[in-house]
Amino acid sequence: MALVILAHPNFQNSFANKIIIEELLNSNMGIEVRNLFDLYPDYNIDVKAEQTALLEHTTIVFQYPFYWYNMPAILKQWFDVVFEYQFAYGSKGDKLKGKNFLASFTVGAPKNGYQTLGDHHFPILDFCKNIEQTAYYAKMNFIDPIYFHGTSTAAGYSAEEITRSAKEHSKRLILCLEELNRELLTTL
Amino acid sequence: MALVILAHPNFQNSFANKIIIEELLNSNMGIEVRNLFDLYPDYNIDVKAEQTALLEHTTIVFQYPFYWYNMPAILKQWFDVVFEYQFAYGSKGDKLKGKNFLASFTVGAPKNGYQTLGDHHFPILDFCKNIEQTAYYAKMNFIDPIYFHGTSTAAGYSAEEITRSAKEHSKRLILCLEELNRELLTTL
Repeated sequence: MALVILAHPNFQNSFANKIIIEELLNSNMGIEVRNLFDLYPDYNIDVKAEQTALLEHTTIVFQYPFYWYNMPAILKQWFDVVFEYQFAYGSKGDKLKGKNFLASFTVGAPKNGYQTLGDHHFPILDFCKNIEQTAYYAKMNFIDPIYFHGTSTAAGYSAEEITRSAKEHSKRLILCLEELNRELLTTL
Repeated sequence: MALVILAHPNFQNSFANKIIIEELLNSNMGIEVRNLFDLYPDYNIDVKAEQTALLEHTTIVFQYPFYWYNMPAILKQWFDVVFEYQFAYGSKGDKLKGKNFLASFTVGAPKNGYQTLGDHHFPILDFCKNIEQTAYYAKMNFIDPIYFHGTSTAAGYSAEEITRSAKEHSKRLILCLEELNRELLTTL
């Protein structure tokens, strides 16, 4: 089943990401979660352990908060060391071929800022070209990212609103994983 | 003058980035270079020291190799902790307002892969929306990035070719910095 690469610098105090992980684990879908900050607080990632976990799964979910229009640093470090030459790319680098690449992230600010005349000027997917092409170069299936806006209490969102959005996000994510599973069973 | 934030995980063994830094230092433009990996091998960035360095300069150059269509992890960590609320953004977060934001990076693979039907499918600037919007949100002037293709010896580039390209890149970068200086003097 799905492997979740969790990249949150402060997961224990996170709100939305914690709910999403809880809902995933409660779904009884046999999800494996690797919490990068628990495993590698010093950023010293065990490349072989991460590659082994990848090989054991067909769908890889990247769960993180969207920081400065991009992934958190530890997830970037993970890609830089784990997606090695002759593993993820290169003449023999087909180890991830056909696996599903699914980004699942939370965005602090409201949706209406992510347009040309808004505070953030670009739609969210314009900021996702680097992960999209990373998936393509590793011969993976890039699935449309799942995300929601409004996790920032500083931006005025209440705990109730964030909880509701995070649960709704979790439902969409689980439905997507179920669909990917069905597709996989069809091709077996 | 310009502050260079250098983010290379293996600078001593780098080829192109080393030439660019040498050429910048030889230009006698009074450049200050902060080598993030020398300063923070454990990713534990001194936020106050970095903010103080930013306040002392008008032009900030980000020098790095392009890895997986994005900046290296340590530079992402730098943005996440240094571009704080009420420093870089927020009601009183105008400390970087009007400063120049100039990305200067090296790309391993050839230019012709960065088009729809090429190996990398998108033009380089499509992968730069996150830094562009980061600059806007911090009220900085986003200068068109300066970069060149072909630093990868694995992709068949010779040491002579990489040296020539890196020196040509350095000239463009220095010309750009001189022009930004002239603009600054005009407004004083």
